[in-house]
Amino acid sequence: MSETTVSLGPNKYGKAENRVVRITRDTGRHEIADLNVTSQLRGAALVDSYLTGDNALVVATDTQKNTIYAFAKKHGVPSPEQFLLTLADHFVAGFEWIEGGLWQAEQYEWARILVEGKPHDHSFVRTGQGTRLATVQVIDGSTHVTGGVKDLVVLKSTGSEFHGFPRDEYTTLVETTDRVMSTSVTGRWRYLPEAVEAGIDYNGLYEEVTAVLLSAFATVHSLALQQTLFEMGKAAILARPEIAEVRFAMPNKHHFVYDLSPFGLENPNEVFHADDRPYGLIEGTVVRDGAAPAPEAWTDVPTFV
Amino acid sequence: MSETTVSLGPNKYGKAENRVVRITRDTGRHEIADLNVTSQLRGAALVDSYLTGDNALVVATDTQKNTIYAFAKKHGVPSPEQFLLTLADHFVAGFEWIEGGLWQAEQYEWARILVEGKPHDHSFVRTGQGTRLATVQVIDGSTHVTGGVKDLVVLKSTGSEFHGFPRDEYTTLVETTDRVMSTSVTGRWRYLPEAVEAGIDYNGLYEEVTAVLLSAFATVHSLALQQTLFEMGKAAILARPEIAEVRFAMPNKHHFVYDLSPFGLENPNEVFHADDRPYGLIEGTVVRDGAAPAPEAWTDVPTFV
Amino acid sequence: MSETTVSLGPNKYGKAENRVVRITRDTGRHEIADLNVTSQLRGAALVDSYLTGDNALVVATDTQKNTIYAFAKKHGVPSPEQFLLTLADHFVAGFEWIEGGLWQAEQYEWARILVEGKPHDHSFVRTGQGTRLATVQVIDGSTHVTGGVKDLVVLKSTGSEFHGFPRDEYTTLVETTDRVMSTSVTGRWRYLPEAVEAGIDYNGLYEEVTAVLLSAFATVHSLALQQTLFEMGKAAILARPEIAEVRFAMPNKHHFVYDLSPFGLENPNEVFHADDRPYGLIEGTVVRDGAAPAPEAWTDVPTFV
Amino acid sequence: MSETTVSLGPNKYGKAENRVVRITRDTGRHEIADLNVTSQLRGAALVDSYLTGDNALVVATDTQKNTIYAFAKKHGVPSPEQFLLTLADHFVAGFEWIEGGLWQAEQYEWARILVEGKPHDHSFVRTGQGTRLATVQVIDGSTHVTGGVKDLVVLKSTGSEFHGFPRDEYTTLVETTDRVMSTSVTGRWRYLPEAVEAGIDYNGLYEEVTAVLLSAFATVHSLALQQTLFEMGKAAILARPEIAEVRFAMPNKHHFVYDLSPFGLENPNEVFHADDRPYGLIEGTVVRDGAAPAPEAWTDVPTFV
Repeated sequence: MSETTVSLGPNKYGKAENRVVRITRDTGRHEIADLNVTSQLRGAALVDSYLTGDNALVVATDTQKNTIYAFAKKHGVPSPEQFLLTLADHFVAGFEWIEGGLWQAEQYEWARILVEGKPHDHSFVRTGQGTRLATVQVIDGSTHVTGGVKDLVVLKSTGSEFHGFPRDEYTTLVETTDRVMSTSVTGRWRYLPEAVEAGIDYNGLYEEVTAVLLSAFATVHSLALQQTLFEMGKAAILARPEIAEVRFAMPNKHHFVYDLSPFGLENPNEVFHADDRPYGLIEGTVVRDGAAPAPEAWTDVPTFV
Repeated sequence: MSETTVSLGPNKYGKAENRVVRITRDTGRHEIADLNVTSQLRGAALVDSYLTGDNALVVATDTQKNTIYAFAKKHGVPSPEQFLLTLADHFVAGFEWIEGGLWQAEQYEWARILVEGKPHDHSFVRTGQGTRLATVQVIDGSTHVTGGVKDLVVLKSTGSEFHGFPRDEYTTLVETTDRVMSTSVTGRWRYLPEAVEAGIDYNGLYEEVTAVLLSAFATVHSLALQQTLFEMGKAAILARPEIAEVRFAMPNKHHFVYDLSPFGLENPNEVFHADDRPYGLIEGTVVRDGAAPAPEAWTDVPTFV
Repeated sequence: MSETTVSLGPNKYGKAENRVVRITRDTGRHEIADLNVTSQLRGAALVDSYLTGDNALVVATDTQKNTIYAFAKKHGVPSPEQFLLTLADHFVAGFEWIEGGLWQAEQYEWARILVEGKPHDHSFVRTGQGTRLATVQVIDGSTHVTGGVKDLVVLKSTGSEFHGFPRDEYTTLVETTDRVMSTSVTGRWRYLPEAVEAGIDYNGLYEEVTAVLLSAFATVHSLALQQTLFEMGKAAILARPEIAEVRFAMPNKHHFVYDLSPFGLENPNEVFHADDRPYGLIEGTVVRDGAAPAPEAWTDVPTFV
Repeated sequence: MSETTVSLGPNKYGKAENRVVRITRDTGRHEIADLNVTSQLRGAALVDSYLTGDNALVVATDTQKNTIYAFAKKHGVPSPEQFLLTLADHFVAGFEWIEGGLWQAEQYEWARILVEGKPHDHSFVRTGQGTRLATVQVIDGSTHVTGGVKDLVVLKSTGSEFHGFPRDEYTTLVETTDRVMSTSVTGRWRYLPEAVEAGIDYNGLYEEVTAVLLSAFATVHSLALQQTLFEMGKAAILARPEIAEVRFAMPNKHHFVYDLSPFGLENPNEVFHADDRPYGLIEGTVVRDGAAPAPEAWTDVPTFV
C-alpha cells in the first residue's frame, strides 16, 4: 500500500486588524480617518514557509503592519479603497514573489461635535450608523476593488407582506399582509475594473450608495425580504455606473407581535418582541447586465455568512 | 463545636433584557420606541423561595415579562424613565409583599430614513451614537430615578495634556502637552426626587444633557481625563436643575503615536495605533451641592465597572 | 438666587484589563498563569486631579500597569488573590495619600496538552469551563478579599420543578413538575478577614468550591432557581471555613419545549429551543451566620448585574 | 444610450442559528446534544422571489426552522454531520425546485458533573475547549460534508522560533529563537465523498482529530506558524483516511515580552503582555495527494476570515 502524502492548497498570510487612526492637521480644522486594516499576501513561492519553516521569502506580518502605519503617514487615507490600492501595489510590485493578496478595511465614521451649533475643529463623536467596508483583491494578475457597508440596521413598521409560500407538513407560519420588517444590511459592491482604472470618488459614492440603499428599503412595498434586497441592489447599480454588482447578506430580524389577548388587550401591530435567534438569513447578488463576471474577486472576502 | 448555619443576604429576582419595540401608529406617521427592559423585585417575604423553594409569593419572572409588554400597549412608552416608573408602581403597589425593586432600560435611537430629502413616515435607520439608559429604584420606601447614556465615543485630536504626575521606580511614561484623548462615556444622572415628583421632560432633558456633555468634552482644555470628567458633570448639573448628581465611568482609550522614525518619517501626532487593552479607567461622581445624598439609589445599578 | 456649585463624590481611577501571562520556567516543566488584571486607586487627596487637573498626586495609570507586569516577575502569581494582595499593599503602603483601591483579576485556566497520553511540559490548551475571579478591596482602613467564578454554564435535564406561584391578570405561565434548568453561574465568595490573615490555599479552595457548586447544582432537586442558588451557596460555606458569604447572579437560561404537535409528534421534554433573551435573573447572597457583615467589601465590585 | 438592466447572481436563503437542544432520556442516564443549526436553500426557480416577491416556491424560513426541531425529535442527533445530512436530503429530495443548499452546525460540548467522583445521570457542565463544526453542501448535484473545530486556543511557552525572513525598509522585527506561540485554531476538514457514502464514525473521528491537532501543535518544533499549521493538517490526514483536506485559519496571538529593564529586572521569557490587535493571520489548506479536488464544497463556508 502506498504511503500517504500531502500538499499545500489555498493559503495566505498577513497581519489582521491594524487599528490605524490618521489625523490630518495641516490646518486648525483637523480631519480624522479611523480604520481597521488587514493585509494578507499570496504567492506560490511562499510554500516553503509551510513545508519546512523556511522564512526566506516571508514578508513578516510585522513588516506588513509597519508598512500600513507608514503609508498612513506618507500617503494619507483619502478613502479606504485608495489606501488599500496603494498598499496592494506596494507589496505586489515591491516583492517579485508576491503574486497577490487580499487587503481589507473597515472604516468608522466620526462627526464633529457641535458647540453652540457650530462643528468643532478637533473634537469628534463616533456615529454608529453602519460601518464602511473596502477590499482590494490582487489575484490571477488582476486587481478587484469593492466598497461596502455593514451593520446598517433598518426597520419599517408597515409596508411589508409575506404570503403565498408553499405549505408542507412542517409549515405553521400564518400569512400576513402587514408586518414589521427589519434587517441589518451588509452589502458589498464590486467596482467595474475600468472605473477603478479611470478613478472613482469613493467617498462621494459611499455617501450616495448608502443613501440610495436606505431610500430603496423605505420605499419598496415589500412582498419578501428577497424582493427588497434585489430592489436595493438595483437602485445602487442604477445610481452609480461604477458598480458591477452588489452582494448582500440580510438577516430577517424578526419582530414578533406579542400576544396580549390573555390580558384582554388587542395588539394591532403595536407591541413587538424583537427576537435574537434564530433569524431569517437572505443572501443575494444583483449584477449589472453586461458587466464581465469576476467570481475570483470575491475569494476569501466575507460576503454571505 | 457548633454547627454551621447560613442565612439569606441581599437578593432580588426578575426578568432581564425584554426587547420591547413599541410602534405608535395612530396616524400614518409612525413613531418607534425600542427598549431593552429589565424588571427585578425585592421583598423580605420572598425569603422562602430561597430557603425552601416555596413559590407562593414569587411573582413569576414570566409574569413580569408579560406585564412589561402589556404596559407597552396600555401606557405606551413616553420615555424610558416614565415607562419604568409605571412598572415599578404596578409591582410595588399591586403586591403587598413586594417592597421594592430595580427596573432598568436601555433605549436604542432610530432616525427616519430620508427619501428625496424628506423623513419617511414609517421607515427608520438605527443611529448608533450612544445608547440611552434609565433606572427606577424602589428601596427603603423611597423611589429614585436615573437617566443616562453609554457607549458615547468621543475623541479630540488636540487640546489634551498630561504631565506633572509623580515618578517612582515603575514610572516610564513621558510627559506630554499634546495628545489624542478618546473615551467612551458612560454617564448616569440621578434626578432630584422633588423634580421627579413635579414631572420632568425626560426626552428633552436627555437631548440637552448629551449635547452638553459633548460640548464640554470638546471645549475643556484637558490636563487630565479626571478634569474633563468633572467639567462634563458640572456642565450637566448647571444645565438642568433636575439633576442631583452624575456618575461617570470613562475608559481612557489610548491612541499611541506610532513610531515611524525607523522609516525616516516624522510623526507629529498624525498616525496613531488605537489600542484595545489595557486602558485607563477613570470613574467619578459630580454632585450638586445641597442635594440630599442618596447612596441607596445606586444599589446594584451598574455604574463604575 | 444662589449660584449652583458642585463637588466631587465617589471616584477611583487606574488601569484596566492588563493581560499578563506569567510563565514559570525554572525547570523544563513550565507553568502558566494567564490573568486579566485591573488596578484602581482611591484617596481624598486625589480630588485636585478632578477639580483642576493637578496631577501631582496621580500615580499614573501607566505606572500602575508597569507595576503589575514588574510584580509578575518579582513575586510571581501564586494565586490571583495573593497577586492582588501584593499589588494592593504596594500602592497603599507606598504612597501615603493612596487610602485604598480596588484590584480585580480574571484568570483563564489552561490544561497541559496530552501527547501519547502524557501531559506535555510546555504546551497548553485553554479550558473554557468557567473563568476564575478575584478581588482585593482596601477601604476604610480594612482589606477585603474575594474569590469567584463566572461563566460556569450548567444544565440539568430533569429534577427541576416550578409551580405554586401566584397568578394575577398578567400570568400565563403553566406550572411544571419537570423542566430543563440551565444557568451560567457567576459567584463570588468573600473570605473571612481572619482567614486571609492566617493564610489560605486559594488555589485548592477554588478547585474545591467550584466542585462543590457543581455537585450541589446536580443533586438539589429544584423547586426554584432561588432554592438551588441558596443550596449552592450553603454547600460552599459548609465546605470551607474561610468563606464568610457568597454572592450569586444566575440567569435562568430558558429552554423551551418546542411545540411539535402540529407535526403529529409528541415532545416529552426531548427537544428544546435554547432562548437568548429575555432570561430570568436570580440574584442572592448566602451568609455564614455569625460572620461580621462587610457591605463595604463589595463597593464597585460587579456582583448582581 | 441603452437602459441599465440587472439580474440576480449567487444567492441562498434560510433560517440561521436555530439553538436546538436534544435530550435523549430513554433511560435514567440522559444524553445531551446542543447545537446551533443553520439551513439555507438554493434553486434557480427561486429567482422570482427576488425579482417580483412571488413566494410560490419559497419554502419559508419558518418552515425550515420547524423542520430542524421536528427532525431532532424524529431522527435524533447522532452527530452534527449526520443530522445535517438528513436535513439536506429532506429539502433537496422533498422539493423538486430546491437544487441544493448549505447546512451548518456548531455543537457545544457538555461533560457530566461529578458527584462524589461519579458522573451524574442528568446534570451537565459545559466545557469550553473548542466548538465543534459541521457543514453539508449540496451543489451542482453533489454532496460535500465537512467537520471541524473552532476556538481551540493553544499556547506553547517555548519550542518556537522565527527568523530568516527578508528585511526591507519597513522591517523592524527582531529575529528570535525562542518565543511564546499561541493561536486559536479554526480548522475544517472535508470528508472524502466515498467515505461519506460508506459511513463515518463522525464522533470518534472528531475526538481523534482534535487530539491529533493538539498533539502536533505540542510536538512540532516551530520555525513559523505556517509550518505548524501544515504539520497539524498533515497529522490529521495521516490519522484518518476519511479526510480529503483540512483548511485552517490561525491567528498568531502575539505574546510580547514585557520590557522590565527600566525597573532593573531581567525578563527571560517569563512575563508577557497578551495583545489583542493586530494579530498575525495565517491561513492554509493541507490536501491529501490523490484526493479529487472539490473547490465548490467550500462555497459560502466560512473558512479563511
